[in-house]
Amino acid sequence: MEVLFLLLLCVLSASADQFTALVELEQALRVEGELAKHLEAYINLEEARLAQLRQLATEMDEHSRTVLSDPVKYLGNPVNAFLVVKRFTVDWPDAKQRLIHSRNTDDLDALQASMTSSFPSEDDYVGSIEALIRLQDTYALETHRIAEGKIPGVKVSPKMSAFDCFEMGRVMYNEGDQYHTILWMQEALDQLAQEESKSVEEESVLDYLSYALYVQGNLRHARNITQRLLDLVPEHTRAQNNLNHYNQLIAKEEQEEGVRKKGDDG
Amino acid sequence: MEVLFLLLLCVLSASADQFTALVELEQALRVEGELAKHLEAYINLEEARLAQLRQLATEMDEHSRTVLSDPVKYLGNPVNAFLVVKRFTVDWPDAKQRLIHSRNTDDLDALQASMTSSFPSEDDYVGSIEALIRLQDTYALETHRIAEGKIPGVKVSPKMSAFDCFEMGRVMYNEGDQYHTILWMQEALDQLAQEESKSVEEESVLDYLSYALYVQGNLRHARNITQRLLDLVPEHTRAQNNLNHYNQLIAKEEQEEGVRKKGDDG
Repeated sequence: MEVLFLLLLCVLSASADQFTALVELEQALRVEGELAKHLEAYINLEEARLAQLRQLATEMDEHSRTVLSDPVKYLGNPVNAFLVVKRFTVDWPDAKQRLIHSRNTDDLDALQASMTSSFPSEDDYVGSIEALIRLQDTYALETHRIAEGKIPGVKVSPKMSAFDCFEMGRVMYNEGDQYHTILWMQEALDQLAQEESKSVEEESVLDYLSYALYVQGNLRHARNITQRLLDLVPEHTRAQNNLNHYNQLIAKEEQEEGVRKKGDDG
Repeated sequence: MEVLFLLLLCVLSASADQFTALVELEQALRVEGELAKHLEAYINLEEARLAQLRQLATEMDEHSRTVLSDPVKYLGNPVNAFLVVKRFTVDWPDAKQRLIHSRNTDDLDALQASMTSSFPSEDDYVGSIEALIRLQDTYALETHRIAEGKIPGVKVSPKMSAFDCFEMGRVMYNEGDQYHTILWMQEALDQLAQEESKSVEEESVLDYLSYALYVQGNLRHARNITQRLLDLVPEHTRAQNNLNHYNQLIAKEEQEEGVRKKGDDG
């Protein structure tokens, strides 16, 4: 699938390669559907396992409670003694083996083994992000519109999560592209503010964002974001060091500006 | 706990050792209650894990279905392409690591490690069964009454499952005690007939029962039980061989009886 995402822009411009790209993506989507079915089957097996285990836990709890409520009376009955001992020598080892340490993953493992070759690769992943960024630049699209899945002229897609935006920024950061890192990390923060169940940690976003801002030369903004990071994670040593560094640079800048102003005045 | 079950009869006859036995059993019961609580906590963690996994499976299923319903339309949007590829390169490896191959067993493992020394042993288990058998003989108790947890003069206990009765018989079988093997395997069959969710496989019970009957010299009953076993598991080679052997022995007996009868007649 490596060439796939270089072709994505062609999809939009309706080139001859469009067909190949679609066929490969369709194949991946079918695998996604397959995987969903196998996951469902796995979850059902796991739920049956937990139901059995819950029954054992309930039995143990009830037995322990009942007998301890009047030990002399109950333990006079050797059938009870047998049942207590059985709990530890038979039921518990059996539960450990069959209900706790068994995995139900055979089917999933087999599926994975048979399908790995048709799975998109890490390169495809980076490629799909690069394609989106190229599209953003070519058509001057707003970051927020892309994150909402609204690309002009094509069908709306599901919206991106804060994590997805973070990933866009992270890949751009790795490519030394501070400009897009800032756009997408900012978007990640905006999405994060709306998410009930957070898809990414705010401090990770702030960490990338503040550093990209610093490299871009936006010292004051970098300082504010770093301060926000430290409000969340006061013990973040690197952020503390960065903050000191930014403050020194800002102080130096202000001093130089002061000197220049004085010079202007003089 | 090794001497514990030699003392169980003493509990009934109110000896000085009664106190020790009770204290040790009480301790085991408290561990049982502890274990039940930790099992509950484990089950809750596992259910949370499965809920997350089910959410992923649902997302995958919906995404695959929606996009495949009109691939050209949907896949023209590169945000969709990104989401498909992310499924395989980020979500799926993460799900495997965090939601499928993680175990949630740390707490249970720690508990087990800290408590194993106070767990009753295999010897205690065999001892608890021997104590029950000794009680049965001493007071001439009906097998069925014991299985129902009804020991005269003491508080009723929970009833024994078919598996429990099978275990009574199995331990007696290992001790070469065919008489009690037959009593308890027969009881296991009776309990099994009433169980909705079978606690032991009928063929296992029949296998022990038929052999004990044969050793006791009850050839015809052994043959009938072996036939019942073969009705359940026709490919059971050892049972087939046994059946042939029993049939030969019975034929020989009948022949000898016939000769004797003839002799009587002549």
